[in-house]
Amino acid sequence: MKKAFKEEINWIDEYHQGVRYGLEGKLILEESTPFQKITIYETKRYGKALLLDDCWMTAEKNEQYYHESLIHPALCGSKKIENILIIGGGDGGSARECLRYHEVKSVDLIEIDIRVIELSKEYLPKIGGNAWSDSRLNLKVKNGIDWVKNTKDNSYDVIIIDGADPIGPSKELYKYSFLKDCKRILKQEGILATQSESPESFHQIHLDIIKILRQIFDYADPMYGSVSIYPSGLWSWTFASMEKPTYMNPIESRVKEISDKCLIWSEQWQKGAFNTIPAFIKRELANK
Amino acid sequence: MKKAFKEEINWIDEYHQGVRYGLEGKLILEESTPFQKITIYETKRYGKALLLDDCWMTAEKNEQYYHESLIHPALCGSKKIENILIIGGGDGGSARECLRYHEVKSVDLIEIDIRVIELSKEYLPKIGGNAWSDSRLNLKVKNGIDWVKNTKDNSYDVIIIDGADPIGPSKELYKYSFLKDCKRILKQEGILATQSESPESFHQIHLDIIKILRQIFDYADPMYGSVSIYPSGLWSWTFASMEKPTYMNPIESRVKEISDKCLIWSEQWQKGAFNTIPAFIKRELANK
Repeated sequence: MKKAFKEEINWIDEYHQGVRYGLEGKLILEESTPFQKITIYETKRYGKALLLDDCWMTAEKNEQYYHESLIHPALCGSKKIENILIIGGGDGGSARECLRYHEVKSVDLIEIDIRVIELSKEYLPKIGGNAWSDSRLNLKVKNGIDWVKNTKDNSYDVIIIDGADPIGPSKELYKYSFLKDCKRILKQEGILATQSESPESFHQIHLDIIKILRQIFDYADPMYGSVSIYPSGLWSWTFASMEKPTYMNPIESRVKEISDKCLIWSEQWQKGAFNTIPAFIKRELANK
Repeated sequence: MKKAFKEEINWIDEYHQGVRYGLEGKLILEESTPFQKITIYETKRYGKALLLDDCWMTAEKNEQYYHESLIHPALCGSKKIENILIIGGGDGGSARECLRYHEVKSVDLIEIDIRVIELSKEYLPKIGGNAWSDSRLNLKVKNGIDWVKNTKDNSYDVIIIDGADPIGPSKELYKYSFLKDCKRILKQEGILATQSESPESFHQIHLDIIKILRQIFDYADPMYGSVSIYPSGLWSWTFASMEKPTYMNPIESRVKEISDKCLIWSEQWQKGAFNTIPAFIKRELANK
């Protein structure tokens, strides 16, 4: 007599406001750190993935949509890009994209949770890629808020804020006091870049981030794109600078240096992504 | 003694390639027609929603992302917009957006399944809105392929193809023979608009639609946006025309007529959305 085995299919779903987004796969590891719950999961669709506190953070075959969007408008636009600061980004993806520019001399990566770094290196090594062995990378397991507070004025050409949603350990990264400190340690001609949530599923938080940055900097503009593993799939990144919105105008030599290996990003794509501000967000920002 | 009742929570998930997208809510109705399974569902996040063959089609508080994107580049760009043809679109959303232009004299809406129209009118009346009572709307319950085949040359100023995924009854709407017939019944200066799936989750189909349209028309360009209830959330619409890509250049008087009531669409948004072609799609189209 034959016995039928039904293959076990597992799903992990992220729940958000009456919506859930799930990926089929196999659980590799789950652990609790002093900061959060970390899950490593092998998905059928996007390769190995990382969740923090049950929220999808990154996946091998999807991460380019997020990292290319966060990094290249800042790195292509800033006059100088010698010294870079990344707050968060323990998966290594942001560092990898920064280190593709030969002009970059050092990247300080400040991640609060050593286990995010260790598990990313072990299970999602492609995301950090060459960054992990690049001598220009300075890895610091520290609180990003303290790091910024204790850093001298005018230290960085570009600051990248690569944090999770503004709940849990990342909450402070979207507040006035922290962002004001970031401006202090950023050089006058530098660019600050931050992920700025979804205008659709994190509507008010999205508006607040832009408004705070507009209080602190001369220019701050949101750019829109797609990250299918994040709530609503519609995501945003906001860039800020003094005197000129330099993040809008990529420097041609840098565009040439990186374009071939980008999955999503191109000069044309970026130009479009700054324009695709949804009409309702544009109206709401105009009404202050 | 108190008795605790746990409120029953229901979810409907759409499954696609190892990904599932679910909305919490309450089932209102489910029926099978000769063409497909229709589900009406009251969601917590987006109001009442329609599914066809277990795929999310539209929802009251999300439909603008899809309908504004499909309609306005065509209706703002075409030299004349007196006679419009819509194939599919039985929920009424496309007709509603078309009928906002005073220059539109007639909209022929050709829907194959009368139950999609009847159930949309009954349960999702906001999506069709004023269209259902507008005397310019000509509702025909017919096969769209036959309609196009039997229509005289140069009959329409704009043709809108508002079909489901190219499986089931909508399959033919993305084939060369049908699209060639559409060109025949479109006026020389007219515009054809079609939804063209996701470059991420329907990669090859997306490329094929653009390539076929480029064989038939002088110009065909994809435009990208967000529909969070569709697979990957990243969606596309493709517009085609002869002699000039008129869909790229909205006519100012029409922009003024519609802008105030648009949730997503603006002239700026549209310009951006045509530019946000992902780098990998641009490369693949260039390689033919």
